[in-house]
Amino acid sequence: MSDTANRIAALEARLARLEDEHAIAQLVASYGPLVDAGEADRVADLWTEDGVYDVEEFHMASRADVAAMVRSDAHQGLIGTGCSHFLGPAHVTVDGDRAVAVCESVLLVRHNGRVLPARIGANHFELVRTPDGWRTTRRTTRGLDGSPETHALLARLGSA
Amino acid sequence: MSDTANRIAALEARLARLEDEHAIAQLVASYGPLVDAGEADRVADLWTEDGVYDVEEFHMASRADVAAMVRSDAHQGLIGTGCSHFLGPAHVTVDGDRAVAVCESVLLVRHNGRVLPARIGANHFELVRTPDGWRTTRRTTRGLDGSPETHALLARLGSA
Amino acid sequence: MSDTANRIAALEARLARLEDEHAIAQLVASYGPLVDAGEADRVADLWTEDGVYDVEEFHMASRADVAAMVRSDAHQGLIGTGCSHFLGPAHVTVDGDRAVAVCESVLLVRHNGRVLPARIGANHFELVRTPDGWRTTRRTTRGLDGSPETHALLARLGSA
Repeated sequence: MSDTANRIAALEARLARLEDEHAIAQLVASYGPLVDAGEADRVADLWTEDGVYDVEEFHMASRADVAAMVRSDAHQGLIGTGCSHFLGPAHVTVDGDRAVAVCESVLLVRHNGRVLPARIGANHFELVRTPDGWRTTRRTTRGLDGSPETHALLARLGSA
Repeated sequence: MSDTANRIAALEARLARLEDEHAIAQLVASYGPLVDAGEADRVADLWTEDGVYDVEEFHMASRADVAAMVRSDAHQGLIGTGCSHFLGPAHVTVDGDRAVAVCESVLLVRHNGRVLPARIGANHFELVRTPDGWRTTRRTTRGLDGSPETHALLARLGSA
Repeated sequence: MSDTANRIAALEARLARLEDEHAIAQLVASYGPLVDAGEADRVADLWTEDGVYDVEEFHMASRADVAAMVRSDAHQGLIGTGCSHFLGPAHVTVDGDRAVAVCESVLLVRHNGRVLPARIGANHFELVRTPDGWRTTRRTTRGLDGSPETHALLARLGSA
């Protein structure tokens, strides 16, 4: 019986780990479709209430800030013409109730009837387990522009 | 014993859920490589026998229709020059024997020796569990062109 | 009791399968961020000691060769300007201690202040389970250029 209990406990721990990694990868996979649809509140809900989204030209420090970015004229202009915030598959590292996810991204926009890759980026998500599931506490996005800072951001892959 | 049985049953249900989500994500991940390889029958087999693939310029309503699209001069011309139907990581929502997957996509083609992003798209898959595994009953693909219809398609993410 | 033991053994086998598939998908997802960060040793460690990376213009046959490629002037030039080795979600097939993963890729580079898709590729990974986890024994990358060879590489999806 002790062996049975140990094996069940080991299964529960391993399965919980895989569920966490899957949930975080799904959160990252939902960002592009939701932001390109203009779903401001659902995008904001990927963060904690005071979560940070630090992207070169913006510094957002709450769900309200993130929702305001989605509703901004700049973002509405982009999605009104049509764009894709295309995020790659996330590499996820879980450590208890905290986690890190890293992926690259491409922003594709329409301009004069053509599709153009406007930006390539590095994305580093810090996440926390909440009663409502995993949420982002800080997302840092930097252009893949050759800078040491961006390379260092990518190199944090695997460090929770 | 009852506790043991309950814990095993809970593990079985959670694991089955994760296996379903994984199988569906893998189905979506196989579309691009198979369609770019020209594997007509294997592409068609991602759908049910009477599955629908509704993409702007085509309306396919069976495996035979999907296979005919892959074998069409238009598609053979694309893959003969070289192209990539690049689909992003799928966000998957399972509800019993039905499921929904959403992702964005980019079609990259070769033209005059250069690689060009020709289209960006929103993809919504409805899937069903069959004796042979998950299959697509309806895939709807629309250009990310700023239209409310495309935004609504992406916003269906999470609703099985 | 026998029923309990059987159910636990079945769970262990199914969970191990899912863990394997997940670990391999994560290995593939880490390649782009690590190579774009210039993390030569960590990129090399995705292969076995004598693993092969066979890409059109290079034939690498060891971790040392892979690390040397990352440190080469050609690669350092690319990442010094800023680039994205963007790999799609991997389709993974495990057979015991061996596995295959297939995905497409896009190389995006900066040129004269613009982002350009320079190459589209087909990627086929052969992997082996080692005491340190899954490692690549052979990765074959070919341009999506319409050649039968590249189509055949993609069509190997699903065959471990």
